[in-house]
Amino acid sequence: MSVVFAQGFSAAGVRGGISSVEGKKDVAVVVNNGPLNVAAGVFTTNRFAAAPVQYSRNIIASGHARAMVINSGGANACTGEAGYAQVEQTADYAASLLGCASDDVLIASTGLIGELLPLDAVFHGVEKAVNALDSSEEAGAYAAEAIMTTDTRPKTVCIEGTGYRVGGMVKGSGMIAPQLATMISVITTDAIVSSELAQSALREATSRSFDCIDVDGCMSTNDTVIVLASGASGVEPGAEEFTAIVCDACAQLARQIIGDGEGASHDIRIEVRGAGSYAAALACARAVSSSNLLKCAIYGNDPNWGRVVSSLGTVPVDIAAFDPQKVTVDINGVRVCDGGKPGEPRERVSMEEREVHIDINLHTGSSAQAVVWTDDLTLDYVHINADYES
Amino acid sequence: MSVVFAQGFSAAGVRGGISSVEGKKDVAVVVNNGPLNVAAGVFTTNRFAAAPVQYSRNIIASGHARAMVINSGGANACTGEAGYAQVEQTADYAASLLGCASDDVLIASTGLIGELLPLDAVFHGVEKAVNALDSSEEAGAYAAEAIMTTDTRPKTVCIEGTGYRVGGMVKGSGMIAPQLATMISVITTDAIVSSELAQSALREATSRSFDCIDVDGCMSTNDTVIVLASGASGVEPGAEEFTAIVCDACAQLARQIIGDGEGASHDIRIEVRGAGSYAAALACARAVSSSNLLKCAIYGNDPNWGRVVSSLGTVPVDIAAFDPQKVTVDINGVRVCDGGKPGEPRERVSMEEREVHIDINLHTGSSAQAVVWTDDLTLDYVHINADYES
Repeated sequence: MSVVFAQGFSAAGVRGGISSVEGKKDVAVVVNNGPLNVAAGVFTTNRFAAAPVQYSRNIIASGHARAMVINSGGANACTGEAGYAQVEQTADYAASLLGCASDDVLIASTGLIGELLPLDAVFHGVEKAVNALDSSEEAGAYAAEAIMTTDTRPKTVCIEGTGYRVGGMVKGSGMIAPQLATMISVITTDAIVSSELAQSALREATSRSFDCIDVDGCMSTNDTVIVLASGASGVEPGAEEFTAIVCDACAQLARQIIGDGEGASHDIRIEVRGAGSYAAALACARAVSSSNLLKCAIYGNDPNWGRVVSSLGTVPVDIAAFDPQKVTVDINGVRVCDGGKPGEPRERVSMEEREVHIDINLHTGSSAQAVVWTDDLTLDYVHINADYES
Repeated sequence: MSVVFAQGFSAAGVRGGISSVEGKKDVAVVVNNGPLNVAAGVFTTNRFAAAPVQYSRNIIASGHARAMVINSGGANACTGEAGYAQVEQTADYAASLLGCASDDVLIASTGLIGELLPLDAVFHGVEKAVNALDSSEEAGAYAAEAIMTTDTRPKTVCIEGTGYRVGGMVKGSGMIAPQLATMISVITTDAIVSSELAQSALREATSRSFDCIDVDGCMSTNDTVIVLASGASGVEPGAEEFTAIVCDACAQLARQIIGDGEGASHDIRIEVRGAGSYAAALACARAVSSSNLLKCAIYGNDPNWGRVVSSLGTVPVDIAAFDPQKVTVDINGVRVCDGGKPGEPRERVSMEEREVHIDINLHTGSSAQAVVWTDDLTLDYVHINADYES
């Protein structure tokens, strides 16, 4: 159901001809039919932010948008003024077909960096998509499919609130760093919310979801997460409940990105407990999640805790104070490192499941904790990224 | 010639039986026969520093040492008090055979983290090595061989100063991060130098060499770089000349590590120019060198400049101010990105040579520059590190 699960939304996913992959759908349009047109967004912090990111960031500042056009097959990043003009032309064209203002249209792109889009194909896709707009399950599914690049499957979420709904879709598989780790996500809701609440709920949600996953430590130029609220349910939820549901939606989508990480054979959950603060726990979990050596070991079904602690040891004391002699590491429930020394024999660790749990306790006396998800580093990851056309 | 190129040194490399690889030499001993016994060292900043690092750091504080024992086949890291006791016992044993004090003996280890050493095999190796000590070319070569782990070849350097010599060896192939990126290196000289000069020259040299290479971004628990000075040449060089030669020696050894990086098929030189400061240039070069996606693209012979600028864009403005619209990127001499936009067609870039040059100009108006070397990320890297016994 994806982005059309909530009332007041229609969507479509079609092939415009942008992607070089035969038959691949490459244009999605999502329309908020109201009555509200609330919008909020979080974007990449990359200084080479793509043209559509620069454009949509300006639109979102108003707190309102009516529609969103997303294309795969080209990122429109590092394309200068010509690229920015392409975004404006696309928004103008979509607005003319939808009968709304140009600054009611958000744009997002994903694909290769450093090339202009084939604008004819984009326009063709937008026209087809606008004609195909629908609130059916199929329309939502097609939209989720159209935004995929190296993803092997669409990723969607549907959550029932108290009298309102939240749905969403995301694409993302590689170039996933723990700084807004996604390429593009759209969350829709029929709740009545202000743009301020939508923005604060989204910020909170991304910090605990997309900011806590790491496929390859590489930050994208195109990361865009958008919330659109139609108010069509007539229900105005409390801020706390709404935030919790948006957090849940983002967490579910982020988990799906890890489950579809490029070439991955294991999903790795790294939990750091007993830290002095959330920031300290997060820094430690991220240090471990970014270790190529650990990720290769997990691919080899080797519960190599030496690569866990050697990564942990790179975190500066002023960021996370802990005594290395007190640290424990459990892998899939077996305490392989106890007080900075060898614990149970690692042969006792079963690595058969896709999911691998690495539980680290810093034993600082405080109880702050953080969780980061990552994937293993496999032959297929290298294959995919060595052969991906530049 | 390695560590015996300079006068006043003898060395040996033998098999003690520590390594599980049949026939692999695993113990090296280097002895400074004087007249001076000056020593300086730089060590890993990892908080899980191995027992031999903790031990040798204390010895080096005195500015003097007479000998060094190095074993491969086991890192003696995360081994607690028992591991530290093994280091003390090894130093005591070597000192008794060499007829010097225990605190004249430095110890370094490399290999698996989280296991105690087979002390009998270590002792056996030390005894054999002490009996085999020699100043011959062969003895130096055997020592360089004995410290290897996943290295495919020994790495040594020999430089003639004005009336004195500097020689050295290094091991390192994986777990190479740009924070003292090496496992173990010994530099010997017959110059007359103070321990203060030896230490300052070494610190300067490592900051511009081992701190500027990156195989996989993973910091080791055992990094150790030692300078031993015998004074046997009778020549006392000026501080500037001596520092320059030690810098040259470390640069040559660091370059050899990149040339032998695990699984590498390309050595990648990343130069950032036109930066506001050396620190800014270095931060940018390191951001690019740590990109798994770029490293996979280079493996696929793809001059993917989008992955260069997307990495550059992750450097915070307060660390390196630059205008993305002014940045140029040349790959092997072809300006593929000009002013943040596409430049020459990437098809013009030849990727046939092993060495790949990525030249970035930030055009800030200042002229600071930095160079970082890295390797491509290959199927063999994953193979090696998925199958490496934990």
